[in-house]
Amino acid sequence: MGKVRVGGFAVSLDGYSAGPDQSLENPLGKRGPEIFQWFFHTKTFRAMHGEGETGDSEGLDEKYAFRAMDGFGAFILGRNMFGPIRGDWPDEDWKGWWGDNPPYHAPTFVLTNHPHDPIVMEGGTTFYFVTDGIESALDKARKAAGDLDVKIGGGVSTVRQYLQARLVDEMHLAVGPVLLGRGENLFEGLDLDALGYAVTSMEQSERAMHVVVTKR
Amino acid sequence: MGKVRVGGFAVSLDGYSAGPDQSLENPLGKRGPEIFQWFFHTKTFRAMHGEGETGDSEGLDEKYAFRAMDGFGAFILGRNMFGPIRGDWPDEDWKGWWGDNPPYHAPTFVLTNHPHDPIVMEGGTTFYFVTDGIESALDKARKAAGDLDVKIGGGVSTVRQYLQARLVDEMHLAVGPVLLGRGENLFEGLDLDALGYAVTSMEQSERAMHVVVTKR
Repeated sequence: MGKVRVGGFAVSLDGYSAGPDQSLENPLGKRGPEIFQWFFHTKTFRAMHGEGETGDSEGLDEKYAFRAMDGFGAFILGRNMFGPIRGDWPDEDWKGWWGDNPPYHAPTFVLTNHPHDPIVMEGGTTFYFVTDGIESALDKARKAAGDLDVKIGGGVSTVRQYLQARLVDEMHLAVGPVLLGRGENLFEGLDLDALGYAVTSMEQSERAMHVVVTKR
Repeated sequence: MGKVRVGGFAVSLDGYSAGPDQSLENPLGKRGPEIFQWFFHTKTFRAMHGEGETGDSEGLDEKYAFRAMDGFGAFILGRNMFGPIRGDWPDEDWKGWWGDNPPYHAPTFVLTNHPHDPIVMEGGTTFYFVTDGIESALDKARKAAGDLDVKIGGGVSTVRQYLQARLVDEMHLAVGPVLLGRGENLFEGLDLDALGYAVTSMEQSERAMHVVVTKR
């Protein structure tokens, strides 16, 4: 069975992994993109977003960007990661932030309290909507992934719930030299040491401190 | 007039600058020393602690360790930074963690609610006890420092109070790849962006991410 991993998860110096006031215009919240400076220049990111493979293909940032999307047979996303809509689904129009061909290319399970039919996208991504909790979503994702890993794709609240439940095996964080001051904090009130997590590697690029956290 | 600086201030990946349960045996709190790995091997640290100048004299860690003790004409310490005693002073015996010749070599102002006569130590350090607040302590320290800088030496609560009051001009943080999980958090509830602080430089050593935060 594969691992359950968080990868390419950006965090500010003061612990924020998303800025405040997420909206259609600000999917990462205000100033959220500032913590992804290590990612935007990579070949992996640019290829994902159809900007061609013209990004940096060398270096630590690309190494971690590639790992953050490689080897996964299924993904789990929080509802806010899927879109800005809250409460009941007004219609079937919203199909995620990513256009017709999302970067997942695998079954992708969206946590929500509001039932929604699956959405089959181009390129192998199908969004399934799970209303019976994070363990159920992980069971479904593990079955779908087979021997491959399952990625907890975010957002912050979803990653925190899986960490709190000790269901994450490995988490890669990219700590950016930015003070957001407000937003969604990854660490606040979460005693990762008591939960059995420890830093097992650190490598540093020009733009971020890349840290791998592993469950003991 | 000199700057008001925080320097050589270690912080864990999850924002803790001291571990829990500070005591005579654990001046930095439990596991606190783990966030100072960047510092203990430096020539500056070893010279301060009478271990001779046999530490690393090259490299980023030494550069920041040296800056963190250089150019100061006065220091301000919280009462817990001065010692483990709480409440009234039981006697005059406690003279700080540092022995007869503390590493400050300048007037050092200790914030406390409990009056105490000054303590003249060897090597130019005199501890003065200030009972009328952080602004008063800074006024006294600035007068004592003349053209030199004033260092807010810690602990966490003292640094947070001076940041909240926007009285810190510059802060060097050394972010260590450690998850403490508990202790005294530097960032929690402190919106440094709204207070006018931003990261102005980042350099990374094998042991820490060295970040300089400056008031706009």
